[in-house]
Amino acid sequence: MRGYTIFQRVSKAFHDNPSLSKLLVVVTVSGGGLVAYAEANQVNSPQITNVSEVDSKKKKVVVLGTGWAGTSFLRNLSNPSYEVQVVSPRNYFAFTPLLPSVTCGTVEARSIVEPVRNIVRKKNVDVQFCEAECIKIDAKNKKIYCRSNQNNNLNGQEEFVLDYDVLVIGIGANVNTFNTPGVMEHCHFLKEVEDAQKIRRTVIDCFERACLPTVSNEEKKRILHFAIVGGGPTGVEFAAELHDYVNEDLVKLYPGVKDLVKITLLEAGGHILGMFDKRITAFAEQKFQREGIDVKTGSMVIKVSDKEISTKEMKTGEISTIPYGMVLWSTGIGTRPVIKDFMMQVGQANRRALATDEWLRVEGCDNVYALGDCATINQRKVMEDISAIFSKADKDNSGTLTAKEFQEVLADICERYPQVDLYLKSKQMRDIVDLLKESKGDVSKESIELNIEEFKAALSQVDSQMKFLPATAQVAAQQGVYLAKCLNRLEECEKNPEGPLRFRGSGRHRFRPFRYKHLGQFAPLGGEQTAAQLPGDWVSIGKSSQWLWYSVYASKQVSWRNRALVVSDWTRRFIYGRDSSRI
Amino acid sequence: MRGYTIFQRVSKAFHDNPSLSKLLVVVTVSGGGLVAYAEANQVNSPQITNVSEVDSKKKKVVVLGTGWAGTSFLRNLSNPSYEVQVVSPRNYFAFTPLLPSVTCGTVEARSIVEPVRNIVRKKNVDVQFCEAECIKIDAKNKKIYCRSNQNNNLNGQEEFVLDYDVLVIGIGANVNTFNTPGVMEHCHFLKEVEDAQKIRRTVIDCFERACLPTVSNEEKKRILHFAIVGGGPTGVEFAAELHDYVNEDLVKLYPGVKDLVKITLLEAGGHILGMFDKRITAFAEQKFQREGIDVKTGSMVIKVSDKEISTKEMKTGEISTIPYGMVLWSTGIGTRPVIKDFMMQVGQANRRALATDEWLRVEGCDNVYALGDCATINQRKVMEDISAIFSKADKDNSGTLTAKEFQEVLADICERYPQVDLYLKSKQMRDIVDLLKESKGDVSKESIELNIEEFKAALSQVDSQMKFLPATAQVAAQQGVYLAKCLNRLEECEKNPEGPLRFRGSGRHRFRPFRYKHLGQFAPLGGEQTAAQLPGDWVSIGKSSQWLWYSVYASKQVSWRNRALVVSDWTRRFIYGRDSSRI
Repeated sequence: MRGYTIFQRVSKAFHDNPSLSKLLVVVTVSGGGLVAYAEANQVNSPQITNVSEVDSKKKKVVVLGTGWAGTSFLRNLSNPSYEVQVVSPRNYFAFTPLLPSVTCGTVEARSIVEPVRNIVRKKNVDVQFCEAECIKIDAKNKKIYCRSNQNNNLNGQEEFVLDYDVLVIGIGANVNTFNTPGVMEHCHFLKEVEDAQKIRRTVIDCFERACLPTVSNEEKKRILHFAIVGGGPTGVEFAAELHDYVNEDLVKLYPGVKDLVKITLLEAGGHILGMFDKRITAFAEQKFQREGIDVKTGSMVIKVSDKEISTKEMKTGEISTIPYGMVLWSTGIGTRPVIKDFMMQVGQANRRALATDEWLRVEGCDNVYALGDCATINQRKVMEDISAIFSKADKDNSGTLTAKEFQEVLADICERYPQVDLYLKSKQMRDIVDLLKESKGDVSKESIELNIEEFKAALSQVDSQMKFLPATAQVAAQQGVYLAKCLNRLEECEKNPEGPLRFRGSGRHRFRPFRYKHLGQFAPLGGEQTAAQLPGDWVSIGKSSQWLWYSVYASKQVSWRNRALVVSDWTRRFIYGRDSSRI
Repeated sequence: MRGYTIFQRVSKAFHDNPSLSKLLVVVTVSGGGLVAYAEANQVNSPQITNVSEVDSKKKKVVVLGTGWAGTSFLRNLSNPSYEVQVVSPRNYFAFTPLLPSVTCGTVEARSIVEPVRNIVRKKNVDVQFCEAECIKIDAKNKKIYCRSNQNNNLNGQEEFVLDYDVLVIGIGANVNTFNTPGVMEHCHFLKEVEDAQKIRRTVIDCFERACLPTVSNEEKKRILHFAIVGGGPTGVEFAAELHDYVNEDLVKLYPGVKDLVKITLLEAGGHILGMFDKRITAFAEQKFQREGIDVKTGSMVIKVSDKEISTKEMKTGEISTIPYGMVLWSTGIGTRPVIKDFMMQVGQANRRALATDEWLRVEGCDNVYALGDCATINQRKVMEDISAIFSKADKDNSGTLTAKEFQEVLADICERYPQVDLYLKSKQMRDIVDLLKESKGDVSKESIELNIEEFKAALSQVDSQMKFLPATAQVAAQQGVYLAKCLNRLEECEKNPEGPLRFRGSGRHRFRPFRYKHLGQFAPLGGEQTAAQLPGDWVSIGKSSQWLWYSVYASKQVSWRNRALVVSDWTRRFIYGRDSSRI
């Protein structure tokens, strides 16, 4: 009974002291050769204005969604003066970058999810969770309408209303079918954990089906044709995962049909992985070609029926049909109905996503913030504010701006309008004087003096450098952290604002605006090879990037439980391969 | 990159040499303090007759079902002269004794399943698998009719026909609702992996639902009332698992509703765990009472509506209704439709299960074997064959039997009619002479001489010792092993039969009849306590039995992959608790 006692003690120790379990996993992780990857908390002291007056009782913050944006907001909110109500149809956070791995069982679904209640359990902030879907936002009366999404004897579709003082919208986006007929009915998507589980079952269905004795050879070929629409990171990663799954595991179990399997990747654009560096795109296309994955670029899907995909060649206009067994649709994101409805209310109709200012406040209403895939930041143009900037900078009201005067407000301009900074960098100018020189010709720094027209001319090109942020987990997570830190320090920053000058008003903005810091992007290509594009155009392709990928994805998990499970899933896959039971 | 290289090499080594991975897990398992538990292969050289003549080409064996019976048959079949076709709606084997653990996430569903194709992959026997359901057996024409159970664009419900030379039926049983109204519509069951997953989601649904802001306190109480109908091992284990899940994990995440949770166990009989020793029953009832699990014995469920269960008190006839949130129905097993239809064909209508002889051959047709829950062995009575036994034993045809003559055939009698052996043991008789003495009075061994009537009288009570085998995994697995070994040695045993004398015919039976060896039974009671009833009425209750349970269940897994996963699931539960994400 000795072994039992020791085990019991150890397990009790883990239970009583959770940090011990962390220690254990740290040892495991480092033993696996994984490199620690420091989380970059780039947001130090941002700025927000226009939050309603602090009440004597707690301010009620309602958070919609438990994806990357909502969860990183919740994890970083630490000011106990808020009372938080979270509303989401999913009671868990899912580590979505690993969803393609779940489709083939490289990682189990359960390993990448963590209950929201567990994430917020030990916080000093009062957080309540409701498993429901928000069906309407009423910003005028500061109310949201919710509906429980359970459909069983527990009472079906019950509706209720919640009040808020501050609303944080992070409900993400849904799939974009571009109104292509048949897509909703016949295609698989890859946005939710359930989608990934369904794909996994369907892949096995296809193989089992192809092994039935009465199925003709032609029909087998159709059933084992896996089509992927959209050559973005998701589509490419799924194609790679599926190829590995088939060639490493399924060929052993289904030897009779292994030669009939075909994977096709359809992309309307000229290349797959269009948002990556050309070297990565070329490598991926060559690798897929070598492995027999059929990459059809310039081919747009115009219709999906139950057994065939119709495509149109972008160049020739030729229309052809391809029989398929399973099709994954991953072409981009669309707008959720509740967001569409809300955009109508706040005068933002006909947009794809909610427009916010640089402090993530939804334009057109108060105390509502939107982050993640359901929002885009509407960066203010320099040219819109050019007169205000000029008069603010022209301290002596002389009607002209000296280099010295300009230099004094430059930091504020660059903070408020990041495109100025980007423009200078893109032109490889080290100093603002270079910009003015360009406009005024070759003069000495001291003698520069610009009137309003010359000032406009000097800055006329900077707005071309405005960039939209990609709809990625990285952006959503950083926005969540930013917003939480703003709300944490709200009172403090109202007294001592730390943002840039208000050019159109007086004083300073309370917080610095949100600034995205790109940490790089991965494109796993299968066969233990990953392409990585890191900041500074550093491109790495191959097995070493795969290990960087393992390290980063392990370290980014929200809990030690997830980390341990994901690492053990990878280990299990190395040793035993992927499971193909149809459950 | 050194760590990378080492890891890669190790993983490659595991891939190339699967036995290495076993080594690793052996180390892990023994490190965990688990005791090895030897698998008892009790069947050494059994007997079967009446198998059709060996063909020049391979004999086609069709196996229906991939449960305990079918899988243990497939694992032990090693004679390459057979061509095997497996038909089952599930392409995996599930370790069903751990299903109650899956309902609460103590063990993951994926950990207890193993693809059938993987189990049979490395065999020297040609085994094909079809994912389909058998919908009709035509024993006259030696055909089975099957239907693919997929319902998607891959082509829906396709049907096909298979021929067989030998048919092995191991499709198990379905639930028995005793025609109680509302059970099929509103109750959960626990026979399949999907059932367990559904229960897990529903438990979380109940808790999430109870946390919605508009739900009244009374409604919360209803939603959090978990009822279990049937006090057998499955119901009791689920009640215990659920109690642990709620008290160890869910109370932390749902502190607001923890006091409203109630678990009720309804049993129509006088006690729960009726098939176990009285000490175990009493311990379980006391433990449940202490923990607040409401055990209602003598209470029969007569109706289930969407929110209420109606029960009838067996003693008083009083009818009452109980509101519930979730109800599990686990009262016993019923007959599958395809078996009912087949029983009609072979003249066995109105039975619960297929009757087979002691060699597992279905009575009334040739070359069809049935094992597991869908069959029962119809043990032949001594009194039916008493004249044949007498004349066979009476070698000198004297009309009387001497003790010596009887002694010579006794081994064969005991083998053919195991109830004789059991009868002697139950009367604590060491020798057959004691039995004869009982009939003839106190005479010396040499002088005993019996006529047919005295012989009948002596054996008149033995048939009372006939026992039906329980519908357990243990029985099904042993039957699968037995049948596989019979078929493996068919040719050999046709030449040199090794079974008992044929009393009603000439010569010997080819194989020894199937004999079940009971290895004991567990009843996990929660809180790391298990009751174990081992052979020889050895009863053990408590934490040490729990560790025996861990050891046995780990060692009984069908693959090293399962073993590693189940052990790591238990470890994960010790460290991190059970997950409550609703996926």
